Amino acid sequence: MTKGNINVSVENIFPLIKKFLYSDHEIFLRELISNATDATLKLKHLINMGEAQVEYGSPMIEVKLDKEAKELRIIDQGIGMSAAEVEKYINQIAFSGAEEFLEKYKDNAKDAGIIGHFGLGFYSAFMVAEKVEIITKSYREEEPAVRWICDGSPEFSLEEYPEKTHRGTEIVLHIAEDSTEFLEEYRIRELLNKYNKFMPVPIKFGTKTITLPLPEDAKEDQKPETEEVDNIINNPTPAWTKTPSDLKDEDYKAFYRELYPTQFDEPLFHIHLNVDYPFNLTGILFFPKLANNINIEKDKIQLYQNQVFVTDEVKGIVPDFLMLLRGVIDSPDIPLNVSRSYLQADGAVKKISSYITKKVADKMASLIGENREDYESKWNDIKVVIEYGMISEDKFYEKSDKFVLYPNTDGKYFLWNELEEKIKPIQTDKDGNLVILYASDAHAQHSYIETAKAKGYEVLLLDSPIVPHLIQKLETSKEKIQFQRVDADHINNLIKKDEPVIAKLDEKQKESLKASIEEGISDKTFTVQLEDLDSTDAPFIITQPEFIRRMKDMQATGGGGMFGMGNFPEMYNLVVNSNSALAEKILATENSEKKTEHIKRALDLAKLSQNLLKGKELTEFIQRSYSDLIK
Amino acid sequence: MTKGNINVSVENIFPLIKKFLYSDHEIFLRELISNATDATLKLKHLINMGEAQVEYGSPMIEVKLDKEAKELRIIDQGIGMSAAEVEKYINQIAFSGAEEFLEKYKDNAKDAGIIGHFGLGFYSAFMVAEKVEIITKSYREEEPAVRWICDGSPEFSLEEYPEKTHRGTEIVLHIAEDSTEFLEEYRIRELLNKYNKFMPVPIKFGTKTITLPLPEDAKEDQKPETEEVDNIINNPTPAWTKTPSDLKDEDYKAFYRELYPTQFDEPLFHIHLNVDYPFNLTGILFFPKLANNINIEKDKIQLYQNQVFVTDEVKGIVPDFLMLLRGVIDSPDIPLNVSRSYLQADGAVKKISSYITKKVADKMASLIGENREDYESKWNDIKVVIEYGMISEDKFYEKSDKFVLYPNTDGKYFLWNELEEKIKPIQTDKDGNLVILYASDAHAQHSYIETAKAKGYEVLLLDSPIVPHLIQKLETSKEKIQFQRVDADHINNLIKKDEPVIAKLDEKQKESLKASIEEGISDKTFTVQLEDLDSTDAPFIITQPEFIRRMKDMQATGGGGMFGMGNFPEMYNLVVNSNSALAEKILATENSEKKTEHIKRALDLAKLSQNLLKGKELTEFIQRSYSDLIK
Repeated sequence: MTKGNINVSVENIFPLIKKFLYSDHEIFLRELISNATDATLKLKHLINMGEAQVEYGSPMIEVKLDKEAKELRIIDQGIGMSAAEVEKYINQIAFSGAEEFLEKYKDNAKDAGIIGHFGLGFYSAFMVAEKVEIITKSYREEEPAVRWICDGSPEFSLEEYPEKTHRGTEIVLHIAEDSTEFLEEYRIRELLNKYNKFMPVPIKFGTKTITLPLPEDAKEDQKPETEEVDNIINNPTPAWTKTPSDLKDEDYKAFYRELYPTQFDEPLFHIHLNVDYPFNLTGILFFPKLANNINIEKDKIQLYQNQVFVTDEVKGIVPDFLMLLRGVIDSPDIPLNVSRSYLQADGAVKKISSYITKKVADKMASLIGENREDYESKWNDIKVVIEYGMISEDKFYEKSDKFVLYPNTDGKYFLWNELEEKIKPIQTDKDGNLVILYASDAHAQHSYIETAKAKGYEVLLLDSPIVPHLIQKLETSKEKIQFQRVDADHINNLIKKDEPVIAKLDEKQKESLKASIEEGISDKTFTVQLEDLDSTDAPFIITQPEFIRRMKDMQATGGGGMFGMGNFPEMYNLVVNSNSALAEKILATENSEKKTEHIKRALDLAKLSQNLLKGKELTEFIQRSYSDLIK
Repeated sequence: MTKGNINVSVENIFPLIKKFLYSDHEIFLRELISNATDATLKLKHLINMGEAQVEYGSPMIEVKLDKEAKELRIIDQGIGMSAAEVEKYINQIAFSGAEEFLEKYKDNAKDAGIIGHFGLGFYSAFMVAEKVEIITKSYREEEPAVRWICDGSPEFSLEEYPEKTHRGTEIVLHIAEDSTEFLEEYRIRELLNKYNKFMPVPIKFGTKTITLPLPEDAKEDQKPETEEVDNIINNPTPAWTKTPSDLKDEDYKAFYRELYPTQFDEPLFHIHLNVDYPFNLTGILFFPKLANNINIEKDKIQLYQNQVFVTDEVKGIVPDFLMLLRGVIDSPDIPLNVSRSYLQADGAVKKISSYITKKVADKMASLIGENREDYESKWNDIKVVIEYGMISEDKFYEKSDKFVLYPNTDGKYFLWNELEEKIKPIQTDKDGNLVILYASDAHAQHSYIETAKAKGYEVLLLDSPIVPHLIQKLETSKEKIQFQRVDADHINNLIKKDEPVIAKLDEKQKESLKASIEEGISDKTFTVQLEDLDSTDAPFIITQPEFIRRMKDMQATGGGGMFGMGNFPEMYNLVVNSNSALAEKILATENSEKKTEHIKRALDLAKLSQNLLKGKELTEFIQRSYSDLIK
């Protein structure tokens, strides 16, 4: 038997890094600036711990472009490297410098925000450069500066480089022919803005001209002086890194504009996330105005790791129902470079997702307590998110009675317990069920709403597309309640009570009336149903049973409902008020042609109030009505 | 100066492979079966070239599960490896066996369908196994069989293994504690079905019992015999690998069912893709029935490489407008493991995308030629795809006159040139513009459609949501044409002609009429506009100018339109037919209350035909009409 060690052949590891490690070549700049940031923060950490006896100062990272020389430089004033450290951290691929550092200073380092993929991240430079130099000088005065050069082959050279006199590391990228895009100023600016906008060490890219304020004693025609200053492209202390108590509402709004410079709207609410245990997560989420929002797809929640932008694909990390929100999540505990299916199975990610859910629920509950009026005014913009959350996340649903509003058609808002208290006395039917009436469209269902309101009932306005699913959920989780849309039946049948009924017609007359109407309408879509209603109620009313309509609605919005109901034909009831004057008139009319004419006209009107009179029928109705007008 | 070689430290390469190489652990099985397939096809290739003097036979790949022993085996009857080859291909990571093989047999190998990521793919086994064995015997008789064992550390052992007597390779995975899911039969079946359903070598997974047919002379109570046979989970020669001329319509439909076993609908059309140069691509695309399709999201176009499933995320490869299609694309030329932004910039991918676009356009043109009636009957199901293609892909748009249908409201279909020829004589206005009338809803715009048809005009029915964008595109690319929705103005104004106008009222009467109406309607939404129309035309007509409505529609469907038009208030014209009997009656009515009553009722009717009479107004209209009925 032979024993041996698997040998990783270096000639082939470079193409591997190029091909697999990062799919986006542009990532190199993020990696190199992360390394520069690490090096700076490491130094700060050593100084704080008394292990480095040097001045920290106000270090920055400089990005320098020289298009003619085809060079891009990233220069930091951080910890630097000795020759031995270059050998260890650079020449030994996959040996992560930060890992060893973390191991050594474990307890203190966690808070220091050290990113730490040193070894590997550095090699991403070869995705865009044909030659890379590292010029570096350690913070330890006694170590000479060195220069390392490598052209992407596994061969490198390393020499002392006394020209470098200040501590820190300078990476020089000799940009390759196929990557000249990274020699364009606009492209580098774009990348810095995308990945490094909130990194914790100031990043300088070129200079800018600022106009100085005029002195107080300036003459009228005196021109203001200008000055060239460093152009710092990042905000090292973005709002989410601060303590909520240090921030005012204005600060959150300003951060929103900083995050989404092309958004004109103001966010409705913000939620500041901040947790240390059992995972680390900070961030700020915003509820945007959803209506008329054209950038909804573009400006999404951004995921950061220690202030480095990672992605705006947060599916799996943020619960689905919050995907319409905006803002920032920053967590070192979210695994990167992994697939969605893996993410969804990851324990830490699940915990993060349920933490966010809980936090949003708590925030909603506190908002409504703080300013009910303001919350109500924003309800229309947030309800889709909330309702979707109620359906999809049980933990969210369980808390939802505290912050979900049920508006009536007159714009009054109820919490669930307020609604229950209000309607219990009169909307409980003879079997003890609390019947909640609702409309999906206050205009289209106007006549039905008016009839219900005339009885003193409350009619909720529930107009989101997912309402059928929501009320299904409410009905199955709460006891003895039932939702009925106002046009599901005549109001007397929707909330059945033990009340005496007065009938003007006897059974025989009713039979005759029913037969005439069935013959007159000759449309199998309608099932004629005689009811003894108030004589002032509408003579003909078209209704559609709650169950059938809801199943069809649920299928239309995807999922739920009963299989095949979507293709179920439209079926309506035609409720005929046998106590109405029109019923009497129909019964009394001898001439069968005239009888049919009355019935057809009444049916047309009933159809009109359900928006069912259309096309040819409507055109004929209008023509006939115009003729009536000039009679 | 020092010179040296960068050293890749092996202790760290294994975690790297686990973490970065494949984000989905389940991929290991696809990789190992790909290797087994390679090994089998390589042998076939060598035999065909006369380089191997052995019998090919009917090799298969077997997947064997032993849950108790925690083992999963993949066994092939392919080329096998000698001890030296194991050393070379397995012990030297990132040394791609297939690459070298391809290099050697370059010209012939391309057609042999060799997949070839050997070295690397194999190591994915360590994502799920704590120990891996390779038991292998080369096709070269003289080479002894060997067994290689490695527990995931870089140390391995290699020994002769005379127990193995047949050629081929057997991979034994000792599944790790955290991956026991891969010891479940259903899970392995699921993976085989996902990734290997169409791989070119038969794959056996267990056995199944089949019932043998009864012999002809069977007795009445004789039970049929059963037999255990190999359970082959794949179809090694799926339809797309065959020549179109060898396939009938039925074969394509059968393949569709094979691809999407849960789909009940039949595809409308298929498009067989087949190109060798400048890239390799085969495949079959299907137009599904889009209406009522609940699985539209789930069953997407699948991307294969040499019959190995890669992904069903084909965005970037397939043009956006074809994302609703179904089917298979197989190409070795599409780079994997790369980001979308990279894909979109890749030259080969761009060519593939435009090839597919062209091919779909050509197929549509030929389909309409072959069977016009059939094509027309399917138009409603395919139009959204086609229309979206016209807007988004110029190459597609340029060819679209050959296959895009324009239906009228009576269900007659025109190609563009047919339409032009038909309507040119009467729908050209006095300025020489060809006016194309259309409706978006045959029901809702019924009265307007009837008015236009009474003049002998054609009215198209264009009801897709993206129609506003489409007609914008048509208007800017074709000369002297103009689309007008039938309710954009009175028909006489939509197609203006030099015809004498008869006016019953003089200017003074008109002024008085207009003043009365403006006073009567007291609603600033409507601009009163008197027109001398036919006395039989409707007395009041509500119209909305094409331009405003189209801008609003375009904003509603996202993009286009003029900024801010979405929030523009609704504005309508109230066209009053001053030659109508009702106009005369209003003018003649002295009593101002009655005059207002006439005007209001006429306005209600005009609103009805634009679906603008709603809510309280509609309820009152209906109540009044019921009262009229019992008068």
